[in-house]
Amino acid sequence: VGVGAVGGLYGARLAGAGYPVRFVARSDAAHLRQHGLVLESPWGDLQIGEPDVYDDPRQVPVSDIVIVALKTTENERLPSLLGPMLGPQTSVVFLQNGLGIEEGQRGALGDRALLGGLCFVCSNKVGPGHVRHLDYGRVVLAADRDRAEVASAVADDFTAAGIPASVEDDLALARWKKLVWNVPFNGLSVVLDALPQDVLADPHGRSLVAELMSDVQRGALACGKKIDDDFLTTMIDDTVAMRPYLTSMKLDFDSGRPMEVEAIFGNPVRAARAEGVELAAIDALYRQLAYLDAHRR
Amino acid sequence: VGVGAVGGLYGARLAGAGYPVRFVARSDAAHLRQHGLVLESPWGDLQIGEPDVYDDPRQVPVSDIVIVALKTTENERLPSLLGPMLGPQTSVVFLQNGLGIEEGQRGALGDRALLGGLCFVCSNKVGPGHVRHLDYGRVVLAADRDRAEVASAVADDFTAAGIPASVEDDLALARWKKLVWNVPFNGLSVVLDALPQDVLADPHGRSLVAELMSDVQRGALACGKKIDDDFLTTMIDDTVAMRPYLTSMKLDFDSGRPMEVEAIFGNPVRAARAEGVELAAIDALYRQLAYLDAHRR
Repeated sequence: VGVGAVGGLYGARLAGAGYPVRFVARSDAAHLRQHGLVLESPWGDLQIGEPDVYDDPRQVPVSDIVIVALKTTENERLPSLLGPMLGPQTSVVFLQNGLGIEEGQRGALGDRALLGGLCFVCSNKVGPGHVRHLDYGRVVLAADRDRAEVASAVADDFTAAGIPASVEDDLALARWKKLVWNVPFNGLSVVLDALPQDVLADPHGRSLVAELMSDVQRGALACGKKIDDDFLTTMIDDTVAMRPYLTSMKLDFDSGRPMEVEAIFGNPVRAARAEGVELAAIDALYRQLAYLDAHRR
Repeated sequence: VGVGAVGGLYGARLAGAGYPVRFVARSDAAHLRQHGLVLESPWGDLQIGEPDVYDDPRQVPVSDIVIVALKTTENERLPSLLGPMLGPQTSVVFLQNGLGIEEGQRGALGDRALLGGLCFVCSNKVGPGHVRHLDYGRVVLAADRDRAEVASAVADDFTAAGIPASVEDDLALARWKKLVWNVPFNGLSVVLDALPQDVLADPHGRSLVAELMSDVQRGALACGKKIDDDFLTTMIDDTVAMRPYLTSMKLDFDSGRPMEVEAIFGNPVRAARAEGVELAAIDALYRQLAYLDAHRR
């Protein structure tokens, strides 16, 4: 569900490996039917000539796995969107950043297996049905309850399709760890109009990054999840080594699209606050972004 | 010294009232000589047809009062700039925002009377030798040591020239109180690309303002200066009532000119830190602005 930078990349890989993938697209549906799905990727370029495309999600038959690759700003629409494709045995994988994703959908999805899929990837949609995968691409999968066997099965399928995938047993910890990158670099790229590398190359920028990462670490700890200092250092080193890349939030902002402010910033602030811990640096950035989100659109 | 939005307004008022004002201008000197100084103002429009203009400050004779109306980003140049116009009895008035202004010049200026002049004014330079004064305009004068008689004399001259002026006896307190407005509205206008009124009309924006004002209040208290809560409320109410106005920092940023980041943000953070108090909200905004200042120019 969603054929953008993330859904287009992983969907093309899975379809290219022979998996029966149903693509639920909105604006690009007609283009996908006519011209197929084009993926440029360091893993090999792919062209899915005749993807199985649906523009009306109610037409999608019951499916084994539903992969949600929409932005979290659309999650309110999910219950009505997913309805008919969900059978009693269907599992749902959320390829989305942020906190509180599975919890937010649990009410509508009952006791189905819900998985988080954290994508460490540089990928952009550069046109209708056209995705440019630039770098990285690893997916970390984790189930939000005791459904590790489903996470393993999905990881196996991803791996068979040439997608580096692994399973972690603590979804909340995995989501907090992903925020160590997303909070500083998504947020500052918008407010400072900058690439992640530019931010790190400036002493003031680097100190803002360090403060935000440390807030994520404190928030995780407040929620019972420990992130080592080494992990923060690694995230910074990896980012310096990364090829220059406009974050998805910066691309959304520049295009006047909604930014994922609540999932990536608001939810961790509130989760820590519920445990009595204030994340002042993230909270200030959250409110700046919420302002910009409301006024840019 | 400096014929911009502030120097042009107050210089024109003083010259118009018959005071012998010497205007030290840089880029506008030739224009001022040819076309004079034009002031549009709710206090009455003024045209100073033949202002006494100097482009080389070393040509300015020794003067009774030197009024510095440059941006604080130029203060490093002041010692060499002011040299020849300073006699032993000359007093210097800094019409500048921020903290640490007089302290920063004390070494070069000896035991002359140094005054801070805080301008509560909406004024823009709209072209060479052309200032548009929009609203307000009150000047609060205070001497940085026990030279209240000089502050009173300058306030009398300002008043005689139709400029609402008053004297306060605590310069540091007056400078901290001015920061209650400058820190949130100068800073957020740049980062959020917004007018002060827009920021206050948004719940996230208003909460950012409240947090920054409270940081200024805590910083002042750390330095032994008490600002009442009522003063913060008044600043917010006055700003809501103010006519829409792009802050000077926003105008500087939009034009690629240096912003007064150190005087208005860095100095209060360091002053409070020296007393063992961290102003985290101001510090984060300081580093964002320092980044933007370095990368915009």
